[in-house]
Amino acid sequence: MNKKKTPRESAVTMTEIVLPNDTNTLNNLMGGKLMHWLDIAAAISAQRHSNRIVVTASVDNISFSEPIALGDVITIKAQVTRAFNSSMEVYLDVSAENIPAGKKQSTNRAFFTFVAVDQLGNPTSVPEITPETPEEEEFHAGALHRRQLRLLLAKRIKPEEAPELKSLFFPEILA
Amino acid sequence: MNKKKTPRESAVTMTEIVLPNDTNTLNNLMGGKLMHWLDIAAAISAQRHSNRIVVTASVDNISFSEPIALGDVITIKAQVTRAFNSSMEVYLDVSAENIPAGKKQSTNRAFFTFVAVDQLGNPTSVPEITPETPEEEEFHAGALHRRQLRLLLAKRIKPEEAPELKSLFFPEILA
Amino acid sequence: MNKKKTPRESAVTMTEIVLPNDTNTLNNLMGGKLMHWLDIAAAISAQRHSNRIVVTASVDNISFSEPIALGDVITIKAQVTRAFNSSMEVYLDVSAENIPAGKKQSTNRAFFTFVAVDQLGNPTSVPEITPETPEEEEFHAGALHRRQLRLLLAKRIKPEEAPELKSLFFPEILA
Amino acid sequence: MNKKKTPRESAVTMTEIVLPNDTNTLNNLMGGKLMHWLDIAAAISAQRHSNRIVVTASVDNISFSEPIALGDVITIKAQVTRAFNSSMEVYLDVSAENIPAGKKQSTNRAFFTFVAVDQLGNPTSVPEITPETPEEEEFHAGALHRRQLRLLLAKRIKPEEAPELKSLFFPEILA
Amino acid sequence: MNKKKTPRESAVTMTEIVLPNDTNTLNNLMGGKLMHWLDIAAAISAQRHSNRIVVTASVDNISFSEPIALGDVITIKAQVTRAFNSSMEVYLDVSAENIPAGKKQSTNRAFFTFVAVDQLGNPTSVPEITPETPEEEEFHAGALHRRQLRLLLAKRIKPEEAPELKSLFFPEILA
Amino acid sequence: MNKKKTPRESAVTMTEIVLPNDTNTLNNLMGGKLMHWLDIAAAISAQRHSNRIVVTASVDNISFSEPIALGDVITIKAQVTRAFNSSMEVYLDVSAENIPAGKKQSTNRAFFTFVAVDQLGNPTSVPEITPETPEEEEFHAGALHRRQLRLLLAKRIKPEEAPELKSLFFPEILA
Repeated sequence: MNKKKTPRESAVTMTEIVLPNDTNTLNNLMGGKLMHWLDIAAAISAQRHSNRIVVTASVDNISFSEPIALGDVITIKAQVTRAFNSSMEVYLDVSAENIPAGKKQSTNRAFFTFVAVDQLGNPTSVPEITPETPEEEEFHAGALHRRQLRLLLAKRIKPEEAPELKSLFFPEILA
Repeated sequence: MNKKKTPRESAVTMTEIVLPNDTNTLNNLMGGKLMHWLDIAAAISAQRHSNRIVVTASVDNISFSEPIALGDVITIKAQVTRAFNSSMEVYLDVSAENIPAGKKQSTNRAFFTFVAVDQLGNPTSVPEITPETPEEEEFHAGALHRRQLRLLLAKRIKPEEAPELKSLFFPEILA
Repeated sequence: MNKKKTPRESAVTMTEIVLPNDTNTLNNLMGGKLMHWLDIAAAISAQRHSNRIVVTASVDNISFSEPIALGDVITIKAQVTRAFNSSMEVYLDVSAENIPAGKKQSTNRAFFTFVAVDQLGNPTSVPEITPETPEEEEFHAGALHRRQLRLLLAKRIKPEEAPELKSLFFPEILA
Repeated sequence: MNKKKTPRESAVTMTEIVLPNDTNTLNNLMGGKLMHWLDIAAAISAQRHSNRIVVTASVDNISFSEPIALGDVITIKAQVTRAFNSSMEVYLDVSAENIPAGKKQSTNRAFFTFVAVDQLGNPTSVPEITPETPEEEEFHAGALHRRQLRLLLAKRIKPEEAPELKSLFFPEILA
Repeated sequence: MNKKKTPRESAVTMTEIVLPNDTNTLNNLMGGKLMHWLDIAAAISAQRHSNRIVVTASVDNISFSEPIALGDVITIKAQVTRAFNSSMEVYLDVSAENIPAGKKQSTNRAFFTFVAVDQLGNPTSVPEITPETPEEEEFHAGALHRRQLRLLLAKRIKPEEAPELKSLFFPEILA
Repeated sequence: MNKKKTPRESAVTMTEIVLPNDTNTLNNLMGGKLMHWLDIAAAISAQRHSNRIVVTASVDNISFSEPIALGDVITIKAQVTRAFNSSMEVYLDVSAENIPAGKKQSTNRAFFTFVAVDQLGNPTSVPEITPETPEEEEFHAGALHRRQLRLLLAKRIKPEEAPELKSLFFPEILA
């Protein structure tokens, strides 16, 4: 039987420098390289929560609005928001700094989902999670809706099976 | 002024072998490495459509349902589905083969969005696209809904600004 | 018993972007990096033909006449030309594009030879090949001469064992 | 004029997974790869303290007593201990975890020295540092002795110029 | 005016360990990775002879007869054999060792040709070379024939322009 | 029983070019990358001496006084100086060349210590070493003092257990 854990127990901080091979012809970080780092940070966080080998199950929509330059320092903070049987949602927050220039910006947020597996790759159950702070509560509650949207987008459930999602997106139909 | 182009003119095929450093402790391809390859394939496709430098704007939800093993051959097919002013949606289809074992499986599909930019990184307009096949027509039509969902998820539009999306997700409210 | 296959069944398209670490101090692609990619593309093609693990047996003379710049898109097309017991000759055609500049050039052609092996690394027979197009016929016929030259250069046969080669190189001695 | 800063303002946490290419034939992390990561973590810490480009000046003796295995998660914590004109000493603490096995061990500690430079590579002054905790006080005081030893080993000072060092190493000569 | 130099002045020794990412599914070194190393070793040798930036012009037929295993130590010895105006032929000798097993084997020999260029990439003349040992004399003499074969294979000369080559390959026609 | 060997039998020359991804924002080689190369060169040297798998045990203080630029050729010479039961001290000498500019500089010297291990990772004895040249004699003698300092710094011995070290550092106390 799995005891409950807190989101904080799965917290991971990863720090990287943008090197030449990570950049495109404008000398900016390629989106794919950032996702590669996000996947590793999120995997470590999900490992910390489950004490299991974990495999990437899905990544939610990510936007890339700010260019990140060669030489910038990337800080990725990852934390599990909620566990569902054998899967875990991980929240990632990315910031980029040009330290000599004294500029720091929040650049991306992302949600990855991981499944805990045994040595043969079969899914295995993970501990539940108890949020401790108001922000963690919010991520924990929102995880349900994001999961419904994920399943809906993957065509694994139908719209009528996602009533919370509907009311979230389209509040007027509640009336 | 930009002349119209076809999706086929932006078609890209990328083939890779899964090497040891691309794998996790189960000897399976890490999701982040696959996304890194997808980003490069999609960028080349968007370059082919726009004849411009392109930067990743967003990636839609991706699911990873099948493990891909060390030594497998990955084939990524990318093609622009639709253009919007300076942005382009790229569809990616991924398959993985264990060639000696004679096994091939379709593993992932993904949508990336890219923005065409000039040398200073400023957005610049791209040609429109004319789908040629029924499948391309479908991707072209669906691109509108995916774009609304993307903007909705990024909180850049409100639900009431995405009427097509609403009717797509929740057909009963049309009645 | 192995059934015959066509060259087309072994066709591989590989697409890569020239990244900073692939370049020399003139910001041009290093020849060695290109050969690394060629070897992988050719190995996949030989795998597709033989459905076996394959190992590089030899590479024929390659010329590098055109510089390929940082950021260029490389397209490598590979296809088996002919099979000999356990070995296969693979033809590779390389082109490089500066897509924003609208420039595409054919840069290299190469022939690699691979041997199909079993799990212990012992050579194992591969299917014969039936060329379908006139160009494939020509590659298929030429493969015999290239093989004699290869064996001659590796000192594994003597000039008198390569009569076709002699008449090809030095037609006047036919008189 | 540079204002004083605290060690905490330069704190960096870097997290990495040991991948196949980082390991030797015993599947353990190579010492050189770990030093590569330490250098990057320490450089970011020195950047945070100085808000300058920084270059590695020296690394003190490092011991590698515990093997770190493929798949382990490495956590590197770096913090500036003391500043000297244009140079900074950075303390690094390394731990390695086999998370599925629930094993975590402290594996290494190291001191790197960095010099802050301007765009031309010329040394430039950095803020002084004010330790806040007893542990930071101890690192701050010890930095003087480590610096004397460093200069002595680099033959840039003579033993008689390092009286504190002498009394530290050989307390009986104080009598 | 360029003074003459000796082959020895261009000698390069490169030593590498075969790491996981350099290997195929049989855990043997991929031919393409070896060629990548050869190209770098040969480039340094050509640089030493010419004191110029150099670019790969061609590589002669290479055979791969011996598998090289994960963890083996590769020693590459490179030396310029002869100079022609702006180009240089470099001879490379490769051996592989499993040091713990006490096994060392000579695995490959190769000839690369490089062109010396100025900052704009234009060919520029290089010093002549004076062989000192009998082996160097032999490589120096043979370079002429290899060059004719190279030009013949690249269709840049016709068979009748390569008389030495003809008599070398087919000695009976001398009679 | 192990026969004696000479330092020369463990000599290793490693040659590398500084590529873009090895450099910081000033386009100079990062110290961590150099240490990564040193570790590999030293490991091969220790392998040559012991004919065993070897693992890094420690690295002595290293100074980085000269910047090494992108495109420079690095030459690392490694040789075992002395053996102690299962451990070996390796001396490394690093030089960097800008060959087109005709500039060569000695940039670093370092001492790494390795332990020979069996397949299970247990320490195993290594041959003694017999220095042949005056320089090798000096390194052999000095290895004793460096070892005492190493053990002292790792707090594995006390100052009074290192009498030679004391007299070396502080000659006046001999009087």
